[in-house]
Amino acid sequence: MGRDKLFSYEIIAECPHTGARAGKFYTTHGVIEMPCFMPVGTQATVKAMAPFELEALGARIILGNAYHLYLRPGVDVIEKAGGLHAFMGWDRAILTDSGGFQVFSLASLRRVSDEGVEFQSHLDGSKHFLTPALVMAIEEAIGSDIAMCFDECTTYPITEEGAKEATLRTIKWAGLCKKAHSRRDQALFGIVQGSVFLSLREYCCHALVDMDFPGYAIGGLAVGEPKALMHEVLELLNKFLPKTKPRYLMGVGHPLDMVEGIARGVDMFDCVLPTRNARNGSVLTSMGKLNVRKKELKEDFSPLDPNCSCYVCRNFSRAYIRHLHKAGEILASRLCTWHNLHFMLDLARKARRAIIDGTFPDLLEHCREVFGDEAD
Amino acid sequence: MGRDKLFSYEIIAECPHTGARAGKFYTTHGVIEMPCFMPVGTQATVKAMAPFELEALGARIILGNAYHLYLRPGVDVIEKAGGLHAFMGWDRAILTDSGGFQVFSLASLRRVSDEGVEFQSHLDGSKHFLTPALVMAIEEAIGSDIAMCFDECTTYPITEEGAKEATLRTIKWAGLCKKAHSRRDQALFGIVQGSVFLSLREYCCHALVDMDFPGYAIGGLAVGEPKALMHEVLELLNKFLPKTKPRYLMGVGHPLDMVEGIARGVDMFDCVLPTRNARNGSVLTSMGKLNVRKKELKEDFSPLDPNCSCYVCRNFSRAYIRHLHKAGEILASRLCTWHNLHFMLDLARKARRAIIDGTFPDLLEHCREVFGDEAD
Repeated sequence: MGRDKLFSYEIIAECPHTGARAGKFYTTHGVIEMPCFMPVGTQATVKAMAPFELEALGARIILGNAYHLYLRPGVDVIEKAGGLHAFMGWDRAILTDSGGFQVFSLASLRRVSDEGVEFQSHLDGSKHFLTPALVMAIEEAIGSDIAMCFDECTTYPITEEGAKEATLRTIKWAGLCKKAHSRRDQALFGIVQGSVFLSLREYCCHALVDMDFPGYAIGGLAVGEPKALMHEVLELLNKFLPKTKPRYLMGVGHPLDMVEGIARGVDMFDCVLPTRNARNGSVLTSMGKLNVRKKELKEDFSPLDPNCSCYVCRNFSRAYIRHLHKAGEILASRLCTWHNLHFMLDLARKARRAIIDGTFPDLLEHCREVFGDEAD
Repeated sequence: MGRDKLFSYEIIAECPHTGARAGKFYTTHGVIEMPCFMPVGTQATVKAMAPFELEALGARIILGNAYHLYLRPGVDVIEKAGGLHAFMGWDRAILTDSGGFQVFSLASLRRVSDEGVEFQSHLDGSKHFLTPALVMAIEEAIGSDIAMCFDECTTYPITEEGAKEATLRTIKWAGLCKKAHSRRDQALFGIVQGSVFLSLREYCCHALVDMDFPGYAIGGLAVGEPKALMHEVLELLNKFLPKTKPRYLMGVGHPLDMVEGIARGVDMFDCVLPTRNARNGSVLTSMGKLNVRKKELKEDFSPLDPNCSCYVCRNFSRAYIRHLHKAGEILASRLCTWHNLHFMLDLARKARRAIIDGTFPDLLEHCREVFGDEAD
């Protein structure tokens, strides 16, 4: 691709009835068709999957995590390997989360100031001090295609005062990150915080848009707040985020949440649930969720999803996969992960197709019917 | 293949200096080139591997285990699935061990008589009574290509009296198994027992050969006895087992033990060690064993084995695989299992090639140099 297209977002089609849009985003490691679901590869591997399998599933971009990789194996190892792509044998695009969420959810003994966060590793208790500039150095050494700003991610519920403090700090850090960031082959995305407070969200959004990032993430959602509040925030941001930049809703990956997000102008999604639930035997099907450990499946020789054409559904039965789960076999995790990732990647592709074909509202309605009653 | 060739063994070449031979064995699910290594798939899956990967590795036959499958998922489930091949999605050959070894090593509260064995399941404590006829019914329902007779496998050391009793029972059960066995598309192999007592081994061998099985297994070795005693037994049996039938040394799969076995006329091998050790980070290389968890590999970006051309060695570094092991990632088990199975399958192919080319003694000498100092 021409150098001029790098990190540009092209709109291919827009839904006339919702905020959904189909587009393309150009990265150093290929073009990402959007909306897209990004499989999570926290520790330099999408759990249970090999890179060639992710390629076969049509994943164009996966996630890595700066916090985890910084602690293990260490940034020096990844840098000497030639970056994360070379280290893990993946030559399509990678997005790294900055570790803001992890520092605030996994690490202990945090001391937060405007300079950064002091914390203890969840692995060995060692002390670390992450600053916006250090996080930029880490993400640049990792060499992801899209790096996230270091942000302060709040829990839910939180007081407006607490949310305001975190939001102001997130804005300040975004400025410091932008200043410290120098890799031209890596896009730096800003992260809008503000919990469920619309005035904070709007303020944060404008502040970040003024800094002119090539893309914007929406953080601090899907942390326990009611769906209606999440939708309100998304609708607000859909008005104020620039149409010509991709929008990424962090940590959201329930099928319906993804499609509802797409309906509100979001382009990118990630979530550990499709892979984590898979390892526990919970799979996504066109009829809703299915727990493959259920006794009733003991002699059920149909595929996980009769409407699915993935490798797993073409080759294995519910009875076999149930047996693998009961026996604690690794292949159980592999097959269910494969299937669930296929489901999410395929749903994002179907949404894209529907937006282009003008049938997105039908898909949205269908997903509400199938997945509307489910909790995460 | 012509029906007349089914379960026939064809000698392709013989080593003039050792007992090694290269041959072919015809089964319902394809021709097995021998010598061969058989990956172990105890619970209807070769741990961490998918069927398409085993095919890519060139495995022509894998193992299943009647004892384990009988207890879970149950023979009725496998039968209703259309047999083990269909249940697990594997359309090459399968050999099932009868479960003799497992009843005597895993189960508790055994009561052994000439009629059979009463035992409690290692899974849920439920009581079962296995007889030679029942084991035949189980293996026929599973539908493996090669079924093993039900035998009494002794531990090491054991008194000559104890070994004699088990051997006589094994011979008696072999007769009962042969009588009960009726599937024409399944070969039934006899198992020679007798611990390290040569007179017992010779007696058992003659008794079984008189029954005219299409193949013979050698059981009760690699259970802790000195290598020299194992070799003595193999040399004895190489004299008395018919040249025109395949010989299978059960549970042997250390690289050197396999090649030493081939040198003494053995054609088939299986072992859980290449897969089990892989999950613990111990891999086989052309220079000997390597523990990938070692600190020194932290920044070692060379492949597991620089002389290996497998998928893992072409795509991933020691540093990456070490990281996956330290992080407890499933991909660690997958990659090391893939590599170790490639090593064993390839070593068997190399031995076959060397026998045909007349260079087998060089390969044997080389393996003694590389693996001679190692314990299992």
